[in-house]
Amino acid sequence: MMASFADYKEQRTQLIAQDRALRVDHVRAGSFTDVEVKADRVVRAIRAREAETIWSKEHDGVPKAFPGMDFLTGKSVIVKTELYEILRQMPKGALLHVHQNATVDAKFLLHLALQHRAIHIRVPCVVNASSIKTATPEFKPLPVEEYSGGPGITDDLYTPNTWVSIQTARKMFDPTLGGPEGFDKWLIDIFTINPGEAYETYRTADLIWKKFGSTFMITDPIIRFIPILTEYLREFIRSSIRDGISYIEVRTAFVIRYILGEDAKTHLELKELLRIFERLIKETKAELAAQGRDDEFTGLKVIYNMMRSISKEEMIDATEECISLKKEFPDLIAGFDLVGFEDLGTSLLEHAEVLLRFVDRQRDAGVDVPFLFHAGETLGDGTKADMNLYDAILLNTKRIGHGFSLAKHPKLMEICRERQIAIEVCPISNEILRLTGSMPMHPLPILINNGIPVVLCSDDPAPFNSMGLSFDFFQVLMASEVTGLLTLGQMARDSITFSMLSDHEKEMAMAAWEKRWTSFIKIVAGMEAPRNQVGNWK
Amino acid sequence: MMASFADYKEQRTQLIAQDRALRVDHVRAGSFTDVEVKADRVVRAIRAREAETIWSKEHDGVPKAFPGMDFLTGKSVIVKTELYEILRQMPKGALLHVHQNATVDAKFLLHLALQHRAIHIRVPCVVNASSIKTATPEFKPLPVEEYSGGPGITDDLYTPNTWVSIQTARKMFDPTLGGPEGFDKWLIDIFTINPGEAYETYRTADLIWKKFGSTFMITDPIIRFIPILTEYLREFIRSSIRDGISYIEVRTAFVIRYILGEDAKTHLELKELLRIFERLIKETKAELAAQGRDDEFTGLKVIYNMMRSISKEEMIDATEECISLKKEFPDLIAGFDLVGFEDLGTSLLEHAEVLLRFVDRQRDAGVDVPFLFHAGETLGDGTKADMNLYDAILLNTKRIGHGFSLAKHPKLMEICRERQIAIEVCPISNEILRLTGSMPMHPLPILINNGIPVVLCSDDPAPFNSMGLSFDFFQVLMASEVTGLLTLGQMARDSITFSMLSDHEKEMAMAAWEKRWTSFIKIVAGMEAPRNQVGNWK
Repeated sequence: MMASFADYKEQRTQLIAQDRALRVDHVRAGSFTDVEVKADRVVRAIRAREAETIWSKEHDGVPKAFPGMDFLTGKSVIVKTELYEILRQMPKGALLHVHQNATVDAKFLLHLALQHRAIHIRVPCVVNASSIKTATPEFKPLPVEEYSGGPGITDDLYTPNTWVSIQTARKMFDPTLGGPEGFDKWLIDIFTINPGEAYETYRTADLIWKKFGSTFMITDPIIRFIPILTEYLREFIRSSIRDGISYIEVRTAFVIRYILGEDAKTHLELKELLRIFERLIKETKAELAAQGRDDEFTGLKVIYNMMRSISKEEMIDATEECISLKKEFPDLIAGFDLVGFEDLGTSLLEHAEVLLRFVDRQRDAGVDVPFLFHAGETLGDGTKADMNLYDAILLNTKRIGHGFSLAKHPKLMEICRERQIAIEVCPISNEILRLTGSMPMHPLPILINNGIPVVLCSDDPAPFNSMGLSFDFFQVLMASEVTGLLTLGQMARDSITFSMLSDHEKEMAMAAWEKRWTSFIKIVAGMEAPRNQVGNWK
Repeated sequence: MMASFADYKEQRTQLIAQDRALRVDHVRAGSFTDVEVKADRVVRAIRAREAETIWSKEHDGVPKAFPGMDFLTGKSVIVKTELYEILRQMPKGALLHVHQNATVDAKFLLHLALQHRAIHIRVPCVVNASSIKTATPEFKPLPVEEYSGGPGITDDLYTPNTWVSIQTARKMFDPTLGGPEGFDKWLIDIFTINPGEAYETYRTADLIWKKFGSTFMITDPIIRFIPILTEYLREFIRSSIRDGISYIEVRTAFVIRYILGEDAKTHLELKELLRIFERLIKETKAELAAQGRDDEFTGLKVIYNMMRSISKEEMIDATEECISLKKEFPDLIAGFDLVGFEDLGTSLLEHAEVLLRFVDRQRDAGVDVPFLFHAGETLGDGTKADMNLYDAILLNTKRIGHGFSLAKHPKLMEICRERQIAIEVCPISNEILRLTGSMPMHPLPILINNGIPVVLCSDDPAPFNSMGLSFDFFQVLMASEVTGLLTLGQMARDSITFSMLSDHEKEMAMAAWEKRWTSFIKIVAGMEAPRNQVGNWK
C-alpha cells in the first residue's frame, strides 16, 4: 500500500488526469488563454452560486427544482438565471442537427398563419369545453374562391370537417374557452409538447413520439404555403443568428413532393424550396454585411432527408433525386439522412443495399453527398434502432445524429474517436422524447470522457419550446461539475470543424467564430465572481 | 467502399463480434453446452412472445406497460409472466450487496412485531383520516412492567407520543380507517416505498432518500429486539435460499451500539449479533443437510459497515473495532464499507487518511479485511460522490457497491477490467432511488460490453418490495436484446468468483452451483419454445 497520504493524493491527481485525458477540454487545456481560464472560473462560480440561490429553492409552478431538471418544467426557472443570460451571448458556432419544420417558435408560426386569409382550419367536431383537449385541427391554405367564413369552430352550428378561415375561427372562438386568446393558447398547445404530455401522459418514447409526430403533421400545410414558408425560413435564420449560431445544416424532408404557390393552388417542385434558401442566405449575408456584422453568419446548407420507412423502390428514387439536386445545388446540399422514429422504423441494414448502390451512383455522377445518419436514438440494447449504429459506421457516415446508445458500444466508440465521427447530441430532445429522465442521466459525459467529438444540437426546438442552442448548452453545463464554459467553447469550435463546409469555408467560419469568442470571453472574464471559488483550469 | 452487399454483411458480422468481444457471455461462448444454448434460445423466444402478449397490453392499474418499466408499477405484471417463473427457479449464486435491516419482506416483519407484546408504538398526533398520510410512528420494545394498553392511537383520547402496545393499537385501529387490516396497510406503506412516492412525490434521489432513510429509522428498533432479530435473520436466510441464493455477504451497520435483550432492557454488545449469525448458519446447514439439500447453501458472511458521515475519531474507532471483530470472527467478517447517501455524505477522500492507517493497522494485527466500498451511486459528474470511485480504486477496493457512475470513467473502467474489480449492480434499487428512469436507461450494458465483471444485487429488497434476486435478474433480462439467460448465468457464476469466500469455499460453492445450474438449464431447454426464433448463441 502507499507510503503516505501525500503520495496518495499525488497518485489520485494522476489517476484523475489519466481518466480525463481524452476529454476535448483537457486535450486543449494547454492552449487556453489566461482570459479563457478566468472566464471559465467565473462561470463555475456563478453555477455554484445559482445552485444555492436558485436551484435549491421553490419556484412558482416548480416546487422541486434541481440543476439539469426536466426542461419543460424548469424552463421558467432557467430563464431567470445569470448563467442562461451568459450563454445566450455565447457564439455557438454551427447548428448541425435541426429539422426544418421544427425550427421556428410556435407563437411566431401562428402569428404568420393569422396574417394570411388563405389559411383555413377544420376540426372533426365542434370545439367546446369537453372536446377541446382531444379535437385535432387540420390546416390548409385555400385559393381565394374557396375562402370560407363562419360559423366558427366553437359554434354549435359548425359542420364538422368544414374549412373555416383561421382569422374567422380565431375571432369567433367561444369566449368561455378564452375567445381569441383561448384560440391561440389552444393551438400553441397543439403545436408544442407541454410538461404534462412529456412527463405524465406520454411518458415513454413510443407514446411521446405520437404527440411529437402530430405537431409536424398539423403544422406542415401552413409551413408548406410559399408566402409563409419564406417568412418562416427567414425567421429561422434570423432567430438562429440572434442566438449566436453562425452556420446551419438543416435537415429538410423531401417526402411531400411539392410546396404550395401563393395562389394556394399551384404545386411548385421542391427545387423552389432550395431556391428560397439560396435567396435567404444571400439576403441575410447582404443585410449583415451592410451592418458590419459579417462575422455573424457563414451560411446554411441543406441535408436531404427521406423517411426511413419507405420501400426499396422509393429509396432508389430518393437517392437519385438527391444526386440530381446535388448536381444542381452543389453548394447547398450537404448530405443525406433518413428520418423517423428509429425504434419502429425500417433499419439502415434493410436499406443498406440501396445505400451502397447510392455511393456507387454518386461516384459515377461525380458528386459526393456524405451520409449524416440518425442512428442509436433509442433506449434499446441490441434492437434494430441500436444496431443502426453498426450500419451507420459501416456505411461511412460522417457524423451520427443522436448516437444516444453509442456509449454502450466500445468498438464503435473507438472507431468514432479514431475516424473522428462527430456525434450530434441533442440533450433537450433526448429528455423530452424520454430517452433520459433528466440531464444528469444523459450519457453525454461518457462520450466526452472517451474523446468522441460531440456537437450540441437542438433537433426540434419548435415543439420543444427550446429555441436556439442556448438552452441545450445550459442543460449540459448544469449536469456536470467537470464540464465548464471552455468545454462548451470547444464543442462550438468542433461544430465548425465537423460541419460539411469546404476547407476554405471552415477556415473563414472558424476565424469569425474565434474573433467573437475572444470578445465574449473577455466580457465573461470581467464579470464579478465570488471569491474562494477554485476553477477547474488552474 | 465495399464491393458487394455480401461483403458488407460479412464486415458487419465481424464488427458486431469485435464490439461484443469483451462481454462475459461472449468470452465464455465457446464453452457453453448444447443444452445451455438451447435453454437460452427458449428464454429468448418466451421473452419475445411476452413482449407481445403481456408487455404490449393494458393491465389493471398499469395502463402503459413496457419491458423493464418502473418496478413498483410493473411488479403486478412481472409476477404474471412465465419468464419470471423461470427466473425464480434459477440458481442465483451469491447475494453480495444487501443491507441487513432491509432483507425481510415488510409483511413478515410486521407479522413478527405483532407476535410480541413488548413491541409498542407511538405517534406524534392522533391518527385519523387527515393525519394518516403524514403521522410517522415510532416503535420500541418495552419491558413487561411498562406494557401499556389503550386508548388506541386513532382514539381522540390518545395522548400524542405515549406508547401503546402494537397489539392494542392494531385491535383498536379506527374501523373507518380500515380497522386492524387498515393498521397493517398503514404500516406496510410506511415500511416500504410505493410507486406514488418513488415516481411522483419524491422524484429525485435527494427526495426519495429521505423516505428511504425513514424506513430504516422506523423499523430498526423492532429488528434490534433480540427475539425478533433472530427470527428476522432466519427468515432472511430462508427466503434467500427459497429464491435460489446459495451464499450471502450481508452489509451490517455497526452504528447503533447494542442489540436489545429479551427483557427489553439489557443492552447486549454487537458481538451477540455475530453469534446469532453463526448459530443460524450452522442451524440452516444442518437443516438442509438433513434434507439432502446441502448444495443450496454455502453460508453467509458479514461486511462491517459504518456510516460515511462520522468524524475522524469515530472512524478510527470503527476501524479498530472492525479489526478486533475480524480477529474474533475470522470466518464471518468479510470486509469493510461505508454507507449512507453518497451525494450528501462525507467522501472517501475525506476519510482516506484513516482508511490508509486502517490498512497498516490490519497488517500489524495480521488480519485482512478487504474494502468493499460503495462508490459512484450518483448521477453526479465530477461531484464528491462520483469522485469516490477514484478513491475506492486507489484504496484497493475488491468490489464496488453500485458504481453507477463508473461508465463515465474510461480509465477506471480499464482498471476494473484489468484488476477484476467486480461491480455490485443493483438495478431495482437504482431505479427506485431515481438514478435511472427505468431499466432500459440503466448503464449496465455499458459495463457488460466493456468486460467489467458484474454481479447483480438487491440492495434493500424490503423497502423496494423486491425480495430475492429474481426481480433484479428479470429487469436486466427485459432491458436488453443482447443479454440472455446465459448472460445471467455467467453473472451468477461471477457472484461466486468475486465473493470473499476462501479459494476452497469458492470451489465448493461453484461445484454446488454448477450442479444446480445443469438441472435448471435442462428443465428450461425442455420447455416448449415457439418456432422460427433464432437464438443469439448459434
